[in-house]
Amino acid sequence: MPAVSGSRLRARLERLARFGGLPGGGVTRSCWSPPHEEARAWLLGEIRAAGLQAWVDPAGNVFGGLGTATFDQARPVVLTGSHIDTVPEGGMLDGALGVIAGLECLQAVHESGTAPARPLAVAAWSDEEGRYGSLFGSRAFCGLLDTARIPEMASVDGERLVDAMARAGFEAARAPEARAPAGAVAAYVELHIEQGARLEEGGVQIGNVEVIVGVRRTRVVFHGQADHAGTTPMERRRDAFLGAADFALRARELVVAEGSGRSVTNFGVVQVHPGASNIVPGRAELVHEMRDPEAAVLEALARKTAALAQEVARGRALSVELRPMSATLPAPCSPRVQAAVDDACTALGLSCRRLYSAAGHDAQNLAQVTDAGMVFVPSQGGRSHRVDESSDWADLERGARVLLHTLLALAR
Amino acid sequence: MPAVSGSRLRARLERLARFGGLPGGGVTRSCWSPPHEEARAWLLGEIRAAGLQAWVDPAGNVFGGLGTATFDQARPVVLTGSHIDTVPEGGMLDGALGVIAGLECLQAVHESGTAPARPLAVAAWSDEEGRYGSLFGSRAFCGLLDTARIPEMASVDGERLVDAMARAGFEAARAPEARAPAGAVAAYVELHIEQGARLEEGGVQIGNVEVIVGVRRTRVVFHGQADHAGTTPMERRRDAFLGAADFALRARELVVAEGSGRSVTNFGVVQVHPGASNIVPGRAELVHEMRDPEAAVLEALARKTAALAQEVARGRALSVELRPMSATLPAPCSPRVQAAVDDACTALGLSCRRLYSAAGHDAQNLAQVTDAGMVFVPSQGGRSHRVDESSDWADLERGARVLLHTLLALAR
Repeated sequence: MPAVSGSRLRARLERLARFGGLPGGGVTRSCWSPPHEEARAWLLGEIRAAGLQAWVDPAGNVFGGLGTATFDQARPVVLTGSHIDTVPEGGMLDGALGVIAGLECLQAVHESGTAPARPLAVAAWSDEEGRYGSLFGSRAFCGLLDTARIPEMASVDGERLVDAMARAGFEAARAPEARAPAGAVAAYVELHIEQGARLEEGGVQIGNVEVIVGVRRTRVVFHGQADHAGTTPMERRRDAFLGAADFALRARELVVAEGSGRSVTNFGVVQVHPGASNIVPGRAELVHEMRDPEAAVLEALARKTAALAQEVARGRALSVELRPMSATLPAPCSPRVQAAVDDACTALGLSCRRLYSAAGHDAQNLAQVTDAGMVFVPSQGGRSHRVDESSDWADLERGARVLLHTLLALAR
Repeated sequence: MPAVSGSRLRARLERLARFGGLPGGGVTRSCWSPPHEEARAWLLGEIRAAGLQAWVDPAGNVFGGLGTATFDQARPVVLTGSHIDTVPEGGMLDGALGVIAGLECLQAVHESGTAPARPLAVAAWSDEEGRYGSLFGSRAFCGLLDTARIPEMASVDGERLVDAMARAGFEAARAPEARAPAGAVAAYVELHIEQGARLEEGGVQIGNVEVIVGVRRTRVVFHGQADHAGTTPMERRRDAFLGAADFALRARELVVAEGSGRSVTNFGVVQVHPGASNIVPGRAELVHEMRDPEAAVLEALARKTAALAQEVARGRALSVELRPMSATLPAPCSPRVQAAVDDACTALGLSCRRLYSAAGHDAQNLAQVTDAGMVFVPSQGGRSHRVDESSDWADLERGARVLLHTLLALAR
């Protein structure tokens, strides 16, 4: 029987963390950035060194294959993976675990000489964190990319996807060619850290994901009037920043009070114009994000927060624009994959709990084209998207063992 | 008797507005930027063409002299001037009027063949708007520059003054050499648009400034915790942006409720870190500005808003730092200059009102070394620091006539 190597898993995770590694710990490795491209090159080398087939598709997705070097309707693949890009000042496990554990599983199978009935593959999906476009690589692979929008896709600081990809040697217009043929993927299972504290607090070793939350992102732009900050009487100011501040505080309360109890919201991007200490802000932009496992809840919250934005603007003699950026629906996981994960935990003697994922994942795109599921391992203190993100090495190895067991079951 | 030319005044103001002119009107002409340096070169040419002496000091201040080409204790100069830099997306009159009207007055005196008892000079002071340091040029001229801070002076987007000046051909470390000898300036009077609506609303032609407000600027930095914006429960978040938003709204109310009635406040610079839609903001920085004509009022407001910042931080499990950026005291104008302005208005048959300046001006630095005063003309709708800043051409010409009359009186 194939068996994962915990020491090899750890060594590779620690090596990968050095690409874009920050002096005080943590990682900044945005997709298409130099550290990301160096990590890509390293990963391709590791795949080859493990005795697997290595290839890259036009969306920049990296693949390692065992018994295959392509996606083909005739020989459906059991696929695993995650991503190697990170948020700014992120951790060393978010995404990296799923890729490196997937590689470890395939290498273990390869080295054991076992030949599963179906080919296996591991993917590192491009730009999961959405610097230029959320879940970009898996979206392209699943045929969910809005091709017409590619030329206008850009980071919050204005860099265009087209330019970022060109710098890394890719042609953005060709990304849709990454789409896999229908039926080419037999099943998908992704290992990931929980990024929350439910497993740790419940003393549970493995999470088996039932549904991935939907995420809505909207750019909220308040327009006021840029005026001299000394000579304009306070009561005549139309301060766009104070409008945005008022909206953010009230929208947060609205989501807490009128959401499902699982609803969350964030304002992570804030820009004020023209941006001088002695000018009343004439324009303020917020990126407003909301998440919930139920589509109807998200819909209702979107309606209510839009009405709130209008109310705040009216009360302050401002105007407000709401520009939808993205709206992904909640994605239910496949009962077949969930059953395989349960079986793996039973066989390995590990405690397991069904839960929902509060973070978006590439698995939600795969769920639209195949049976997909996710395996979670505990995050220490529930910390994620921060430099001190961590998990017990024993928990990471347990996750890799569940992944291997699940992949073999799905490939039988 | 010398007389100002309204058409020449207008032609020069319109020409100057083309340096950094924006397609839809208005001007962006930051000190040391290419458009500013082009404007400087043009201004030096105009000064020479007007038959005056032209020179530039180590702080980048441009001078035009009639009967002098230097500052010298032995022959004290009656000085006028203002600045040719603008805020981003500013107007064509703020600063420009005082420089171009000063040049017009000196040219009119020169052309009339009159020889005042004292030499006259006009100044264009560097970086009045404080991209790198508020009132930089006049501060250097008046010996008020904190020399030790020059290496760390920088714009809000992080560009160092040293680099900006080097690009324009200046050496920042030498700026303190611009200091004028004690007693070299007999008096200073500056013409400026009001930038408020008091003259227009009162139907008054000329404002005679009694005091210039003090301005305090403080960088307020809230520290929270960067966390995953999906998986971190709402009640566990330590969101630095929401803390900053709460503080800004409440500080605004505090200044309105507990200030002098003339107190104003602004948050014109807002930065949120790390700045990704899916990360709870771990740090939020505001530049908090407050102004009042009375030092004691500003002191009290500074104490109260600092206490408020601490209270907001405590209530949200954040910490807050208050970093003083600048604190200029209110500057009373000289009774002698005020009397000269009153006399000029009487002689010219113009209505005149005493008022305070709600904006900071180079005159506040000059007030520390000589008898200083300011003449205001009405601003349409009180608009300033915006692209549609405007005044009646007749009002601008009236202001130039009052300036000429006042300069000649002070030079007798």
